[in-house]
Amino acid sequence: MSEMTTDILEQNLGKIVLVRLKGGKSLRGRLKGFDQHLNLVLEETDDTTNIENTRKLGLIIVRGDNVVLISPPPR
Amino acid sequence: MSEMTTDILEQNLGKIVLVRLKGGKSLRGRLKGFDQHLNLVLEETDDTTNIENTRKLGLIIVRGDNVVLISPPPR
Amino acid sequence: MSEMTTDILEQNLGKIVLVRLKGGKSLRGRLKGFDQHLNLVLEETDDTTNIENTRKLGLIIVRGDNVVLISPPPR
Amino acid sequence: MSEMTTDILEQNLGKIVLVRLKGGKSLRGRLKGFDQHLNLVLEETDDTTNIENTRKLGLIIVRGDNVVLISPPPR
Amino acid sequence: MSEMTTDILEQNLGKIVLVRLKGGKSLRGRLKGFDQHLNLVLEETDDTTNIENTRKLGLIIVRGDNVVLISPPPR
Amino acid sequence: MSEMTTDILEQNLGKIVLVRLKGGKSLRGRLKGFDQHLNLVLEETDDTTNIENTRKLGLIIVRGDNVVLISPPPR
Amino acid sequence: MSEMTTDILEQNLGKIVLVRLKGGKSLRGRLKGFDQHLNLVLEETDDTTNIENTRKLGLIIVRGDNVVLISPPPR
Repeated sequence: MSEMTTDILEQNLGKIVLVRLKGGKSLRGRLKGFDQHLNLVLEETDDTTNIENTRKLGLIIVRGDNVVLISPPPR
Repeated sequence: MSEMTTDILEQNLGKIVLVRLKGGKSLRGRLKGFDQHLNLVLEETDDTTNIENTRKLGLIIVRGDNVVLISPPPR
Repeated sequence: MSEMTTDILEQNLGKIVLVRLKGGKSLRGRLKGFDQHLNLVLEETDDTTNIENTRKLGLIIVRGDNVVLISPPPR
Repeated sequence: MSEMTTDILEQNLGKIVLVRLKGGKSLRGRLKGFDQHLNLVLEETDDTTNIENTRKLGLIIVRGDNVVLISPPPR
Repeated sequence: MSEMTTDILEQNLGKIVLVRLKGGKSLRGRLKGFDQHLNLVLEETDDTTNIENTRKLGLIIVRGDNVVLISPPPR
Repeated sequence: MSEMTTDILEQNLGKIVLVRLKGGKSLRGRLKGFDQHLNLVLEETDDTTNIENTRKLGLIIVRGDNVVLISPPPR
Repeated sequence: MSEMTTDILEQNLGKIVLVRLKGGKSLRGRLKGFDQHLNLVLEETDDTTNIENTRKLGLIIVRGDNVVLISPPPR
């Protein structure tokens, strides 16, 4: 993982991020932790795959190999 | 696996967790063990993929590469 | 593989286990051997994917990367 | 690969085995060789995917990562 | 990663690139960073999968194993 | 790769082989080279996926991870 | 990667090659660079998946794990 990726993730610790997973699932949650495989810990997570019917997931661990992209919200 | 992931999983040993697998299967079971690949041991597990027709699986070993996310229940 | 996983598999050597594979196949057989990749040796195996039409497979070797979960039968 | 897997495959060298591949293909052939990745050499192989229309493949090399399970025929 | 790949990516730092992902998703964004796995950092990113309905993603991290191809825009 | 696999491939250098790929594509070509990942070099290759409409590919390099099986023609 | 694969690719530097990707996409472009993972740099690339509606991609980097086969044009 490049230093820039680490920096961006560190700058967003405690902030809301959007995560797109393989298979089409979308998550929105507060980034609590990550490692070099992009394993993520998110809290206050919502499954936003179906934007008209989001579901509360709360605290979750995401296995990094499922991650397609991570997006901090616009500033 | 980050230390935080390990901490969260350790704090939830003996507690009910929700596990989402690749391919769409959902499990709910008591976390009995895990390793750094996210191989999991769950007991009293239900297959909750079809929420209207859950199936008892009891004690299971989950191969970690199938895991999408792990979620402790809300406190 | 965690020590617990090894312990559970060792305790179930010689016993019937259920194995779910990627792609949806289900097997039921007597656990004769395993290794750290979850490569399995089963005997008296039935393919139970279609529960109304099980098929006898007898002694089989399962390549571990196909395994989703392994479940000893309820005690 | 566990010693037992090696033993079973060695005991079946020169014998007919059934091989199920990812994607649903089924093969039946005489086991001539194997390695620790479950790369297989089979001879007199038939593609038995469609049991009503088997096709002769003769001598083949199977790349191990396609293998789901290997089954010696019942004794 | 070949030196040429690194050179091309470095020459395009700060420029708009097109990225095609596995599963068919297309992105267009300003290349801000990359590493040897082709993990990418893009900013001002648009999801251009549906060209008639692009969506703003802003700053994103793309996990490299999803990347099919990266294309600097024509000069 | 087992010594036997290497031997079979070496014995078939310069001969026509059939290659089945993941995703269902079938190739028929003259084996010109290979390595331990089953990366293949074939010449005079035909894409024989649709047997009623084969297509000439000529000299090709096949990335080994796509290979399901390789079959020398019957002697 | 075998020496032969390297030789063929080196002999085709600066020449038009055809590249088939997983998922069915076809590319035609001038080979500008490659490495041992079959990561490719192509220029003047056309997406030739739909032969009746090719699309200009120009200079691209292809991540090697998407490559099925590479074919120099007939001489």
